[in-house]
Amino acid sequence: MNRGKFIAFEGGEGAGKSTQARMLVDALRARGLLVDLTREPGGTPGAEAIRALLLDPPGEGWGAEAEALLFAAARADHVARRIRPAIERGEWIISDRFVDSSRAYQGGAGALGDETITALHSIGSGGLRPDLTILLEAREEHVAARLAARDGDNSDAIGGRDADYHRAVAAAFRRIAEDNPHGFAVIDAEGDPETVHARVMAAIAPLLEGA
Amino acid sequence: MNRGKFIAFEGGEGAGKSTQARMLVDALRARGLLVDLTREPGGTPGAEAIRALLLDPPGEGWGAEAEALLFAAARADHVARRIRPAIERGEWIISDRFVDSSRAYQGGAGALGDETITALHSIGSGGLRPDLTILLEAREEHVAARLAARDGDNSDAIGGRDADYHRAVAAAFRRIAEDNPHGFAVIDAEGDPETVHARVMAAIAPLLEGA
Repeated sequence: MNRGKFIAFEGGEGAGKSTQARMLVDALRARGLLVDLTREPGGTPGAEAIRALLLDPPGEGWGAEAEALLFAAARADHVARRIRPAIERGEWIISDRFVDSSRAYQGGAGALGDETITALHSIGSGGLRPDLTILLEAREEHVAARLAARDGDNSDAIGGRDADYHRAVAAAFRRIAEDNPHGFAVIDAEGDPETVHARVMAAIAPLLEGA
Repeated sequence: MNRGKFIAFEGGEGAGKSTQARMLVDALRARGLLVDLTREPGGTPGAEAIRALLLDPPGEGWGAEAEALLFAAARADHVARRIRPAIERGEWIISDRFVDSSRAYQGGAGALGDETITALHSIGSGGLRPDLTILLEAREEHVAARLAARDGDNSDAIGGRDADYHRAVAAAFRRIAEDNPHGFAVIDAEGDPETVHARVMAAIAPLLEGA
């Protein structure tokens, strides 16, 4: 049996990750493939319980270190219980966010260095990388318009941080992608969903060969 | 102002850590010292929420990696929000368990190596060590009698593991103490609580000089 494929969508809030992940899943299923759609933080009962602690912290809120450890713990459970088993069964698994979100939010734009986040991923999840990470990029004003159209879905402990922070996140995502060009497809996320979806399908075409 | 003192009690289930920690706190308070009594996992609202996930795991139970990351996250919050502030205010803080429990349970006796647990402690809590760690040791049959007298307080996800595991934990604690003789007092925990308490007071006497 062939090993399955693991694809992660990354990018800032409002870039269209969830929409594009769902559209990709539908397109792959239409080709007869077995596809699992998941998200981070979360994706398993354990990781979803950690997600609840991350988005609504008890007490005074998490410090940078505790927050990074919680993300790594949630990811370890997600990888062990859902992502690796799917890959080993020969299925496709598509995740809305993965480790590069930790590298961008808690590493590059946060108080911790990229080496720290990478070390935690190595300890927790054996350093698993997606077969392809799709980074959705859009200009700040484009994202702001999308987020304004949402119903208060952006006020949690992370999404609610300020514009400078989100600018630093976008820059960190770009650096991470540039450091690993073969593992990334950087996709223009402006335009209607069908247009962006066509760009995603072009990016994953090489993975479909033989699948 | 003088820096406070941080003392941790370590040892297997049923060694008398909680009893001895309380007796030490009472003795120090009777000398007019400001003393905070805490425990791990837990000790802050955030860490207590993580404790609840550790002792009653959602889903299929935690893998070794996720478990170690959760302990490190709880400890990071505990150190940042309670232990370091107490030390900086010049107070004493006594904890029922600290990082050496992770080293013994998840490291030495578990699936992960000591280097992994130590790396997580370095990332999460700057590698903070107690001024003194008191390791309470008792023979297996002595501990079994004590645990049998408890009311079903030993059936959580960690206390409920088998005898071989608890033997490996005891051996790991002993090795950790032997590797750092100046940081440890290894105390015979058999005998009535007052007798063991007198041994604890003798061990901490050097820390009381000038306090």
